[in-house]
Amino acid sequence: MSSILASLSKTKAEMESVGITDNIRLSDDEDSIVIIDQTRLPGKLEYKNIADLESAYQAIRKLEVRGAPAIGIFAGYAMYVLSRKDAGLDFDTFYGNFTANREYLNSSRPTAVNLSWALKRMDKVVCDNKDKPVREIVELLKKEACAIHSEDIEMCLKICEYGLSLLKDGDGVLTHCNAGPLATSYGTAQGPFLLAKARGMNIRVFVDETRPLLQGARLTAFELQRAGVDATLICDNMASLVMRNGWVSACFVGCDRIAANGDFANKIGTSSVAILAKHYGIPVYSLGPTSTIDMNCPDGDHIRIELRDPDEIRTMWYEKPMAPENVKCYNPSFDITDHELLSGFVTEKGIVYPPFDVNLKKLFDEN
Amino acid sequence: MSSILASLSKTKAEMESVGITDNIRLSDDEDSIVIIDQTRLPGKLEYKNIADLESAYQAIRKLEVRGAPAIGIFAGYAMYVLSRKDAGLDFDTFYGNFTANREYLNSSRPTAVNLSWALKRMDKVVCDNKDKPVREIVELLKKEACAIHSEDIEMCLKICEYGLSLLKDGDGVLTHCNAGPLATSYGTAQGPFLLAKARGMNIRVFVDETRPLLQGARLTAFELQRAGVDATLICDNMASLVMRNGWVSACFVGCDRIAANGDFANKIGTSSVAILAKHYGIPVYSLGPTSTIDMNCPDGDHIRIELRDPDEIRTMWYEKPMAPENVKCYNPSFDITDHELLSGFVTEKGIVYPPFDVNLKKLFDEN
Repeated sequence: MSSILASLSKTKAEMESVGITDNIRLSDDEDSIVIIDQTRLPGKLEYKNIADLESAYQAIRKLEVRGAPAIGIFAGYAMYVLSRKDAGLDFDTFYGNFTANREYLNSSRPTAVNLSWALKRMDKVVCDNKDKPVREIVELLKKEACAIHSEDIEMCLKICEYGLSLLKDGDGVLTHCNAGPLATSYGTAQGPFLLAKARGMNIRVFVDETRPLLQGARLTAFELQRAGVDATLICDNMASLVMRNGWVSACFVGCDRIAANGDFANKIGTSSVAILAKHYGIPVYSLGPTSTIDMNCPDGDHIRIELRDPDEIRTMWYEKPMAPENVKCYNPSFDITDHELLSGFVTEKGIVYPPFDVNLKKLFDEN
Repeated sequence: MSSILASLSKTKAEMESVGITDNIRLSDDEDSIVIIDQTRLPGKLEYKNIADLESAYQAIRKLEVRGAPAIGIFAGYAMYVLSRKDAGLDFDTFYGNFTANREYLNSSRPTAVNLSWALKRMDKVVCDNKDKPVREIVELLKKEACAIHSEDIEMCLKICEYGLSLLKDGDGVLTHCNAGPLATSYGTAQGPFLLAKARGMNIRVFVDETRPLLQGARLTAFELQRAGVDATLICDNMASLVMRNGWVSACFVGCDRIAANGDFANKIGTSSVAILAKHYGIPVYSLGPTSTIDMNCPDGDHIRIELRDPDEIRTMWYEKPMAPENVKCYNPSFDITDHELLSGFVTEKGIVYPPFDVNLKKLFDEN
């Protein structure tokens, strides 16, 4: 482990001093999960107790909790809270309820990979320990849910440290979408800005509003403002001028999926940021866990792009429709950034530099 | 005159067969100006009669009529309609009213150059003819107002013809903001798409929604849809993916001001379109009248950029605020596109190609 990670517990305390690191937690009586209701942001910071299956299902479905890692963490705790109420049952009845709950939760957002991944981990705990008393299984489920959470925190803290190592006092950074503590325990793409703040560094962050879902305006701007980071919100089409003004020394973006050659998918508009940055001679870093690397995917052309509802562009958020009724829209949820545009991937295992086809492979060979 | 402009009256008829070419006109009884109320678009196509000074002032101020050339045309007609009511007065009283009306209208949008330009033209007509009977002066004012309008139409038609000469059947074009018939009689940047439609050509147009004021979504998408053009609305941050998909063979944008070296100012986001297009090897054309060329401005660094209200980003159009209260915003109304990114300026005098410093100057030397 490099010296940068010598004291992750110190990093954790620093992040907690400035960040929104209470977006998901188990209530003290363990009867419910306490979440920040993200649908009320940025107007209202409202905590909500989720104590039953239907509320848990709706919390994911209605995006009260969102961000792939956050959904995984939430699902783990939800399965524990629900199982705890069944701790007095015999195993077969217990597991019948468990399976029904798991399947129902899994249907809340069918495309969320972290959701089914976390639910599978919880299921494996039950199956691997089916000969133990149910009360003991329930305790093991708590342990597993906490492990899912703490593993994500550790991953985030490492990414925050590696990411911050790329910045110096006074830098300006442009960022896109939301991959902060609301989406992924302690933050990936935006985590380093919070850590910088905790360490008294001045980093000026330009936040793309990120149409059409406005994750930058609603969530990233909220997180940074709350932490006291110097944040400036811009429309996506203003990034070019901000760079031309000489205000940006690096761009930090997230990643949803990385192909073997280093092409990566991330929120729509990411490739635009990267192309502009290249034009202006500004480095671009993609921050995220190594779990997003898919060595079976050769390049960006093999990543399928999800198309979403045109009304996210035409009517969503507005008092009245802002585009002609039924006008055709193209609404892709993410885009592909070519690996030539990227300076490096910031992962929990360190910073991966080009040539990406060689160096991404090494990450896995070394394990 | 090149053969492309051999029959502008035919071009005009073609444009009228598909375009919104009735955005400003004198009513049949000449008591009022009939405008399309642009604040009701895209939901409602509503014509409005403007018959008095206060309504005319409010129409400009409230953006019921917008687009620099459209405001100039409107102001000319407004001065005629108001003067007509005073045709029975003696000259001094007439000119006193005229001056008061002119000054009040001029204060409706202080930064609109075409507004004061048109009002000065109308004033000059009165001053140059002050020894003639007032009724005759009023007739000359009508003539001048119609001239302002028809000169703009002729300029647009030429730009439409030159612009269309750059396209072929089946092309995809990406455009930004609104410089169609709603803004400038028969359209500049988007005019060629209407002319193409009239001639049975299939052009697929990708329309940037153009945050924060959404001129693309509200106005350009409306104009193109109404004319039957194949239009697809996208968020500004989707342009990169649309280009990567191979769907765009050219970009057509407007221009607010062109410096002597070919750098130009246009709606915020234009430089982003140009940089993306260069990355993907797609030509970019800026369409507009030669009146926007400012040979006294050496380059883009000498163009001052207007900053607008942060609430255009944080709250405007929305049901509830979509960004944290008081979060800092940077909201420039336009940006500078470097001349190296541009393939050509499409003007009423023809297409100007690089080197722009030499060829823009030639436009004026030849006159």
